[in-house]
Amino acid sequence: MKLNHAKIYSKEKQKIERKLFSLLDKDKPNSLYEPCRYILKSGGKRIRAILVLLSAKAVGAKYSKAYNAAAAVEILHNFTLVHDDIMDNANKRRGVQTLHVKYDLSTAILTGDNLIAVAYLNLLKDCPADSRNIFKSFTQGVIEVCEGQSLDKDFESRVNVSLDEYMIMIQKKTAALSEMCCSIGAQIGGGTVQQINKLKNYGRNLGIAFQLQDDLLDIIGDEDKFGKKVGGDLVEGKKTYLFLKALQKAKGQNKKLLKNVIKNGGIEQNQVKIYRDIYHELNIIEDTKNEVEKFTKRALNSAKQIEDFEAQEMLIWLANSLLNRNK
Amino acid sequence: MKLNHAKIYSKEKQKIERKLFSLLDKDKPNSLYEPCRYILKSGGKRIRAILVLLSAKAVGAKYSKAYNAAAAVEILHNFTLVHDDIMDNANKRRGVQTLHVKYDLSTAILTGDNLIAVAYLNLLKDCPADSRNIFKSFTQGVIEVCEGQSLDKDFESRVNVSLDEYMIMIQKKTAALSEMCCSIGAQIGGGTVQQINKLKNYGRNLGIAFQLQDDLLDIIGDEDKFGKKVGGDLVEGKKTYLFLKALQKAKGQNKKLLKNVIKNGGIEQNQVKIYRDIYHELNIIEDTKNEVEKFTKRALNSAKQIEDFEAQEMLIWLANSLLNRNK
Repeated sequence: MKLNHAKIYSKEKQKIERKLFSLLDKDKPNSLYEPCRYILKSGGKRIRAILVLLSAKAVGAKYSKAYNAAAAVEILHNFTLVHDDIMDNANKRRGVQTLHVKYDLSTAILTGDNLIAVAYLNLLKDCPADSRNIFKSFTQGVIEVCEGQSLDKDFESRVNVSLDEYMIMIQKKTAALSEMCCSIGAQIGGGTVQQINKLKNYGRNLGIAFQLQDDLLDIIGDEDKFGKKVGGDLVEGKKTYLFLKALQKAKGQNKKLLKNVIKNGGIEQNQVKIYRDIYHELNIIEDTKNEVEKFTKRALNSAKQIEDFEAQEMLIWLANSLLNRNK
Repeated sequence: MKLNHAKIYSKEKQKIERKLFSLLDKDKPNSLYEPCRYILKSGGKRIRAILVLLSAKAVGAKYSKAYNAAAAVEILHNFTLVHDDIMDNANKRRGVQTLHVKYDLSTAILTGDNLIAVAYLNLLKDCPADSRNIFKSFTQGVIEVCEGQSLDKDFESRVNVSLDEYMIMIQKKTAALSEMCCSIGAQIGGGTVQQINKLKNYGRNLGIAFQLQDDLLDIIGDEDKFGKKVGGDLVEGKKTYLFLKALQKAKGQNKKLLKNVIKNGGIEQNQVKIYRDIYHELNIIEDTKNEVEKFTKRALNSAKQIEDFEAQEMLIWLANSLLNRNK
């Protein structure tokens, strides 16, 4: 049997979006729910929601058992976007104005807060009688996202950040949420502890690979497809995996140039080429690709142990797609 | 038997504070948890936490069954303070710097977000196997607080706000949370639906009375005890119960003067006397006192139907104390 993976993904994504779009349709006051609807309708891959569905399927349940939980993680993800965009002073997201720009700061804070609660309310709809562990996993996910974002903000002003610290940060900021998606999907699907752990493992490793790939694409990405200028992280002085790895390996003049990025809080767009050359010279691109592959392989190993044929196939396809993406 | 109400309150308050103070003692990163500890240690009446305990006791459980849930609502309340202070541009709270002033905007947003999740985590500790209704009540409380705050922000820029709209706003912004406290306390204590509803009724009416009394104290409060200048709401142009009631009753020159407050977004401190005189002339102080008494009486009626002696006594004492407070 040959699955049309992209078609299954797109079909389930549509169902989740229908749910997300109809969810807060009639809620009042509009001053709160119009911005909620705005962010939920602003697109995205809905990958976290798909992870919930596939994890439920992986333990033998139907997708339909976890649509509300899938919506819940997507809503939660959107809360993080709204609040992160405030903290990052971002003006655009997915090609449109960020929420605090379109509305105002207060509205954006409140919208994010409300989305957390709306997420819980939707999670509840798919919960069995004793759902304490599901709630705990979900809540732990929220806490780790906050801790990760806090570390990320710390790193901005710190001069010395180690690669180990960076890995902890992305595990919290990115991987904890994808791990949580798999965990609650598997729990709602009625999985065993062993099944749940396997899927959590998949989600965590996928999340790390995803973030490292994101760092990589900033340097090797196709400008047209990636939608933003190459080297944007360097311009903003972000301490990405590539940057920290380069700093670790560099000596002499290269090290001095890299330290300048920190000292000056970033570089000019026309300097990107200089730093890209340093990365190539130090083999940073290959190093990062190897890391992405390492974590992707770990995710794949977990996926291969899944019994349900369609879920296994889909999770493997998903990991490979993220590995090979160019935007 | 004669209870020492104040002593019981103070003893239970201390226990809750010990829990709150030890709660996040060792959590990392400090950039996130130091501000969390800062706000949780900044004092307050801890009245919402006490409501949880008394409601558990009211249905026959021990206080000890609900300490974590009591901590949870207090943490949740503190989340609202942190985010509201950002939106209100407030510099001081309980005599010390507000969180976004002491730290920064990003830290304050993240601290609030994290406190929501920490609240859920603590609620979980006191939850029985099937705790879906408890979680639903808690979550509904968060949503109503957000809706209430959103309405409150709306009212700032709106010219026409009716008294009915104002009542809906304070029910959501203030009373929904005290209702929720009673609800989850009673649920954790194992109360019947009837008992739970009675306590919810108490909490809601207490909350409304509390907020109206707050509006009143801004005008009749003792400056030394109240800790802020009399008429601060008028200076800030806030549409309080007193103001909206006066606007409803006023005619001619008085009406014009009241409309000026809206038009100018507030008044000067030295104009407070003029408006206080208008309030007296229109009998607004008495009107508001009557409303406070009306809702307090409703709360008392619910309290009187509670079987547990200590809980009944304490809830009655609490309602009367709030009615008679002067700060």
